[in-house]
Amino acid sequence: MIGVVRDVYERYGFEPLETPAFENIDTLLGKYGEEGNKLIFKILRRGEHEGTGDADLALRYDLTVPLARVIAQHQNELPRFFRRYQIQPVWRADRPAKGRFREFYQCDIDAIGSTSPLVEADVLSAVCEVLARLGFADFRLRLNHRQLLTAILRKAGFPDESHPKTLVAVDKLDKIGVDGVVQELGGETSGFGQAARLLLSEFPPGRGEGVLDRAEHFIDGDDGQAAIGNLRTIVQLANGTAAAGKIVPDMSLARGLSYYTGAIMEIAVPDLAGSLGGGGRYDNLVGMFLGRDIPACGFSLGLERIIFVMNERHMFPPDVTRGAVDVMVTIWNEPSRQDALSLASELRRTGLSVEVYPEAHKIGAQLKYAAGRNVPLITIVGEDERARDEVKIKNLRTREEHSVSRADAGARLRGILASNESASH
Amino acid sequence: MIGVVRDVYERYGFEPLETPAFENIDTLLGKYGEEGNKLIFKILRRGEHEGTGDADLALRYDLTVPLARVIAQHQNELPRFFRRYQIQPVWRADRPAKGRFREFYQCDIDAIGSTSPLVEADVLSAVCEVLARLGFADFRLRLNHRQLLTAILRKAGFPDESHPKTLVAVDKLDKIGVDGVVQELGGETSGFGQAARLLLSEFPPGRGEGVLDRAEHFIDGDDGQAAIGNLRTIVQLANGTAAAGKIVPDMSLARGLSYYTGAIMEIAVPDLAGSLGGGGRYDNLVGMFLGRDIPACGFSLGLERIIFVMNERHMFPPDVTRGAVDVMVTIWNEPSRQDALSLASELRRTGLSVEVYPEAHKIGAQLKYAAGRNVPLITIVGEDERARDEVKIKNLRTREEHSVSRADAGARLRGILASNESASH
Repeated sequence: MIGVVRDVYERYGFEPLETPAFENIDTLLGKYGEEGNKLIFKILRRGEHEGTGDADLALRYDLTVPLARVIAQHQNELPRFFRRYQIQPVWRADRPAKGRFREFYQCDIDAIGSTSPLVEADVLSAVCEVLARLGFADFRLRLNHRQLLTAILRKAGFPDESHPKTLVAVDKLDKIGVDGVVQELGGETSGFGQAARLLLSEFPPGRGEGVLDRAEHFIDGDDGQAAIGNLRTIVQLANGTAAAGKIVPDMSLARGLSYYTGAIMEIAVPDLAGSLGGGGRYDNLVGMFLGRDIPACGFSLGLERIIFVMNERHMFPPDVTRGAVDVMVTIWNEPSRQDALSLASELRRTGLSVEVYPEAHKIGAQLKYAAGRNVPLITIVGEDERARDEVKIKNLRTREEHSVSRADAGARLRGILASNESASH
Repeated sequence: MIGVVRDVYERYGFEPLETPAFENIDTLLGKYGEEGNKLIFKILRRGEHEGTGDADLALRYDLTVPLARVIAQHQNELPRFFRRYQIQPVWRADRPAKGRFREFYQCDIDAIGSTSPLVEADVLSAVCEVLARLGFADFRLRLNHRQLLTAILRKAGFPDESHPKTLVAVDKLDKIGVDGVVQELGGETSGFGQAARLLLSEFPPGRGEGVLDRAEHFIDGDDGQAAIGNLRTIVQLANGTAAAGKIVPDMSLARGLSYYTGAIMEIAVPDLAGSLGGGGRYDNLVGMFLGRDIPACGFSLGLERIIFVMNERHMFPPDVTRGAVDVMVTIWNEPSRQDALSLASELRRTGLSVEVYPEAHKIGAQLKYAAGRNVPLITIVGEDERARDEVKIKNLRTREEHSVSRADAGARLRGILASNESASH
């Protein structure tokens, strides 16, 4: 799976990058919003300070903030438009749930240095291509814009200082439903609760068609209108790409992370609450390290989430009935152990994967072990074989056995493997 | 490089395993000796307990102890002889030095379930094959045995309770020299310091030949003699493998980790103080989790150390003068952005890696950017090309340009790439 992701990302011109598991704690704190802050794993300061309970390092919470730190630190060595992919684990002190772990892999792409909506379209195309290559056909790309959300919330009566909390509540919509969101915002009797219910009925999630027109009439202010124009351009630009027909503007998409400044997006499939991945534009994050803003846009696919859905849908090819190795070399007796290792070396040189049984147990026990491990072929070199410079080959699939000259053993074993495999198809 | 390591390990019948970055702190504490304990990165307990400075998790310090935990936890699902490889980072709160980092990759193999010296020979063969495949010819495998060390130290006048400290001092021999070791053990005037100097002149490091005979006459006791027999068997068994001729018994090899119980080994190259990797037998470690011992033996290659030496020796092939992508698609003007993305999609479908310039800058600026990025080919679709359904291709290596039909663009670009490459060889 990682091979598919990497192949698509590289074809889109993203370059590989890895960063260390931990960052200075100040690099991470204050970048993810209040909820995110709480979920950061902190590492105790080492040495004499250990007793103070002070933390100076923290495990990365995502791959975006470490990237922003790298960009800020190496800005002079990087091209003006820098595109990188990164496939590494991140850590969150979250309650584990279905397809949710405290350690999980993110597969990120980010394009740094341009505010052009072409970047969003290109990024969306790349992730759509990954999903298509993995066999997904029914996913949707939910698309929204932070500044459009701001305009909508203002118009709906939410003062600016209430927006972060409101977005966090709306972000949980797919898990807790409209009632849950209303509850989180103070309930039916509160002004915010009522505003949220009205808002979500005005802009019901997942409709797509016409939602941008409706938003255009609903909101006031130039920023919101510019955001609508930006989203329309992204949809239009994506029409020639792998993202064509997949994008659904959705005013209920909020995204939890606080660093987004423009378009935000998320991938939804019908059979998973939560998303397979998400991303957006974050034009101010690098500036938090550099003191000078550098525009950026990225997307993160969640590896375990995707695997979870693929498993549920039986999208992986059925297990090939193959053992851990091609051949197990048996041990005839203690004095022949060195020769068994030599034989294994010879066979490995022909490209076979070979395990040597470690003990001089009875051959029957060794065969039983090989069968239990689903190893297809074993070799036996007893006194007779040794005297004739031969190797006895036993095919555990067909139960056939025959002796071959030792020099030919590798080639013969490979031949049997090939015919075993074609027989099983 | 990781590809080579993985390929060899799999050919030896080791199966891949990954474990989480952190373990419960109790899993790691007390397994590495005093020095190791101090270098473990500890993670603050989350939630309301955070204020107490309590740590409940810790970043793995190596891959061996997590493996032992996995073995103990899943013993009923695992085969009797379990062989796994694992290539993942570990973390140590060490002072960074040449080729030494706080986060670094280990490439481990371990064979669980057998006490046979065949296992040591097979493991040594695998790591020798990795190094040979990477181009190393001059490495040596230093071999010693914990119980032989015990017998030697006893005979030299070190009481048992002084052994851990003595081994830690001797382990630093290649970094601090004989004088340094003597100093660490109390100096020339102390009994231990004098014993250490005598011992290291009796068993000078790196001689190999005859050292086992000398040890045999030096020590008393059956355990030590059995250890010598074990080492002789390992050397003999390795004779038919990739480790043949590489093994040097060396009584000054101590290994820092406290969990070893039998043979210990380390890979040395002349131009690096410290080792490229090391390992040994640890028959009691799984038992610390399970309450029942399961024998085991493993080896760990240090990825960054190996890369460091390969870099110093210029063992990597010279940088191929290849850009990050095969093709950069330029943007003629704003209205043609969607078409540029479509063209990129078409070209990527033919297997090319393609970057789209994100802005409608002047073509000259776009060409300059591509040249600076070492991109070999660019495409231009102006009004004329568009009207004729053509794409102009510019070869930035040869400065040649010509227009081709859009349907052929992918194939033509691939053709030029191929001839560019053969021209540069």
